Amino acid sequence: MTPPDPSTHPLHHVGVATESIQATAPLLELLTGESCSPVEDLPSQGVRVAFVGQVELLEPLDPEGTVARFLERRGPGLHHIAFQVDDIEAELDRLEAAGIRLIDRKPRRGAGGHLVAFLHPSATQSILTELVQV
Amino acid sequence: MTPPDPSTHPLHHVGVATESIQATAPLLELLTGESCSPVEDLPSQGVRVAFVGQVELLEPLDPEGTVARFLERRGPGLHHIAFQVDDIEAELDRLEAAGIRLIDRKPRRGAGGHLVAFLHPSATQSILTELVQV
Repeated sequence: MTPPDPSTHPLHHVGVATESIQATAPLLELLTGESCSPVEDLPSQGVRVAFVGQVELLEPLDPEGTVARFLERRGPGLHHIAFQVDDIEAELDRLEAAGIRLIDRKPRRGAGGHLVAFLHPSATQSILTELVQV
Repeated sequence: MTPPDPSTHPLHHVGVATESIQATAPLLELLTGESCSPVEDLPSQGVRVAFVGQVELLEPLDPEGTVARFLERRGPGLHHIAFQVDDIEAELDRLEAAGIRLIDRKPRRGAGGHLVAFLHPSATQSILTELVQV
């Protein structure tokens, strides 16, 4: 997954909000031919996640969390996109200097123990965008 | 982009609906480090498209088209995901046999002249899903 050009940031995954990973994983397995990863709880983010290929399934753990609110407002479906970066702190600095509003000024631990950070959708034309240091 | 295992279907791109490719491309160029492709008109689908890395920007050409209606209903943002397949007709047969409702029973020409087909979101937990033969 390491890009040949370190200045480019390939798509790492697409996040999909769902009421139930267990109910949705078979569909993604059928579509992608990949097997669903073990489910991982991320209580600090109020979600439980699993990957099927490059699709991250997000199920609410916390009924007041952002994914639960997304499901209430919009129903299940595409939630965010994530780009792979080599140095997330440098990338957050670069984007902030370019005028992009950040949700996470400092990276935190996300799925798989990777450092992650979200950009504010008001700065990204409503495309909720995550950076993942891989 | 050819997968090592032909039975798997990697993520080909993510579609983003926007009122203006010209206004949105610089943001995606900033995020990905990639340059925006030339814009391509697909009048049969009522859209104009361009790619920035693996992100496909979709701008309505037809005010009655599906992307225009999506923008009216939900605003700009993530629109669909597309998986890469080797044989789109065989894949449509396989998915239909598995009970997946199709929008396109037969593939049609999409961006870049590729054969594409959409699955019905009622069959895919509201995730609008495209197949692309590459």
